[in-house]
Amino acid sequence: MILAGGAGSRFWPLSTPERPKQLLPLATQDPLLVDAVRRLTPLVPPERILVITGEALADTVRGAVPELPPNNVIGEPRAAGTGPAIAWAAAEIERRDADDPTMLCVHADWAIGQPAAFRDTLGRAAATAERHAALVTVGIVPTRPDPGFGYIQLGEHVNGAHRVARFVEKPDRATAERMVADGYLWNSGIFVWRTAIFLAEVDAHAREIAPALRSAALGDIAAFFTAVTPVSVDHGVLERSHNVLVVPGDFAWDDVGTWAALRRVRARDAAGNATTGDVHPVQTRDCVVYAEEQTVVLYGVADLVVVARDGITVVTTVERAADLKSMLDALPQRVRDRR
Amino acid sequence: MILAGGAGSRFWPLSTPERPKQLLPLATQDPLLVDAVRRLTPLVPPERILVITGEALADTVRGAVPELPPNNVIGEPRAAGTGPAIAWAAAEIERRDADDPTMLCVHADWAIGQPAAFRDTLGRAAATAERHAALVTVGIVPTRPDPGFGYIQLGEHVNGAHRVARFVEKPDRATAERMVADGYLWNSGIFVWRTAIFLAEVDAHAREIAPALRSAALGDIAAFFTAVTPVSVDHGVLERSHNVLVVPGDFAWDDVGTWAALRRVRARDAAGNATTGDVHPVQTRDCVVYAEEQTVVLYGVADLVVVARDGITVVTTVERAADLKSMLDALPQRVRDRR
Repeated sequence: MILAGGAGSRFWPLSTPERPKQLLPLATQDPLLVDAVRRLTPLVPPERILVITGEALADTVRGAVPELPPNNVIGEPRAAGTGPAIAWAAAEIERRDADDPTMLCVHADWAIGQPAAFRDTLGRAAATAERHAALVTVGIVPTRPDPGFGYIQLGEHVNGAHRVARFVEKPDRATAERMVADGYLWNSGIFVWRTAIFLAEVDAHAREIAPALRSAALGDIAAFFTAVTPVSVDHGVLERSHNVLVVPGDFAWDDVGTWAALRRVRARDAAGNATTGDVHPVQTRDCVVYAEEQTVVLYGVADLVVVARDGITVVTTVERAADLKSMLDALPQRVRDRR
Repeated sequence: MILAGGAGSRFWPLSTPERPKQLLPLATQDPLLVDAVRRLTPLVPPERILVITGEALADTVRGAVPELPPNNVIGEPRAAGTGPAIAWAAAEIERRDADDPTMLCVHADWAIGQPAAFRDTLGRAAATAERHAALVTVGIVPTRPDPGFGYIQLGEHVNGAHRVARFVEKPDRATAERMVADGYLWNSGIFVWRTAIFLAEVDAHAREIAPALRSAALGDIAAFFTAVTPVSVDHGVLERSHNVLVVPGDFAWDDVGTWAALRRVRARDAAGNATTGDVHPVQTRDCVVYAEEQTVVLYGVADLVVVARDGITVVTTVERAADLKSMLDALPQRVRDRR
């Protein structure tokens, strides 16, 4: 299953509720969701890929990935975090495949540098999940002490995997540096498990989800999402379970969290500029520029983020682009609502 | 007369041959040319203001300053510098007013800080020109050692004016500093003289202009501009004449030569930003932003120039904006030609 919910304002003014991050061509010339499906299909045929997204986006998503059967795109009537979305998908997978299926969860809005290594890791994670009847999370070998991610401390070694000793929420920078030095992995949000094992853990631990899942009539998604309490799968299930293994993944993984991430995930020119669209950097270095139906010319600047779309241009620095909230707060509503 | 010729690429991508600098609202919300006419009308009624511009622009100019009689806007069949334009205007003024007229020359593309002081200086310059039967140029008291202007060295004192000891072309910075310290004035291009005196000096000194002016049938502008040799009035007449006085003008005068000039001539917000259009600077200082049919948001930046119009955005620094030539040279023709 591919989680494709969430709007996010971090790519304003490009991301809007109608066109959230996963539908933007941030890592390649194609939307992140299209990249995500393409990355999986050598491993999982399209007819066995489910996409969970907001109800209002379901038709847009179907249009973006026409290789998936239309009823493989599921619209959530209400955003309730990753816990209910994954639980619903697990139940749906069981309805469609009664033969002890194993499910794999990824997000639609990632950039992955080495898709073959990614698929190889998923294969090992699936084998581990099936063999040990465990919840398996993929922990990414960190490339920097990023305080923007959760971390996983490794416990006892189990056949090429580890028990999870501890999940750590987004740390401060000093803690992140110490954890990277101590061999902690990034908590990527890539999960693999047999649906039966996962649903049993939900039943045992996730009081926010389990009652709704039991009482909702088979396949009544509206009833389920009405009854459920929003919770992340990490908090609602994984942190409470005693049956979680972590498989290390050593490939470039980026959650493309901000405009600044485009300097990591996109191809850059000789001067370090990551550009999308009709962009002309002259004597300019290390800029991120996204132009849509616009020409952008830069001259003699560095480390800027410039986003131009029809009718609106934003100019900021790579550093400031990491948090646009105070910018958005300062703008009049009519500008913030431009889309 | 108002000189309103010239295209100039220094305000690219906003200035184009169809909409040169003098038709852009750079200093106020109105085009520079409209400001220029408005600044003069307390001194000179509209029916006695001539505008000389390129033939292709004449109708646009008539539309921009409808208070002028249409035949007061004269289209040059060919750009030939200020010498022929002013000589033609002088002859035209004599054709319209046989009674020893005095003419005043200004440019359409200036910003003037204190219009009352400007008019007062013009009045004194006209009185000087009439009394001494001289060519009079207004020398601006410099506010900085700008190497972008020509300078005038003052000679002997003559009734509140001075003889011109020497005209100095655009100097290097060190020379400019020395000249400002030594009391040189900026050569503004504001001229006042009796047309008879000026035309006599043209006849005596300006071999590029005089024969064409003599031989062109009365009022045959096409014949005149075909026959004439391009030359500036400074080089063709003033530097060769022995009858030039300079009257000091102590008002803010700016030739609005580059985007950077907008920091000097426009009202700035508390953070020093000079903005035009729907511009939202957040935690941003000392930027120049011009937005046309576009919204521009700046966040956490300083000393940038951002120009956004329909379909094209340019981002550079205040320093680089002083010379866009190497930027334009680096752009593909199709981008440079965007308008």
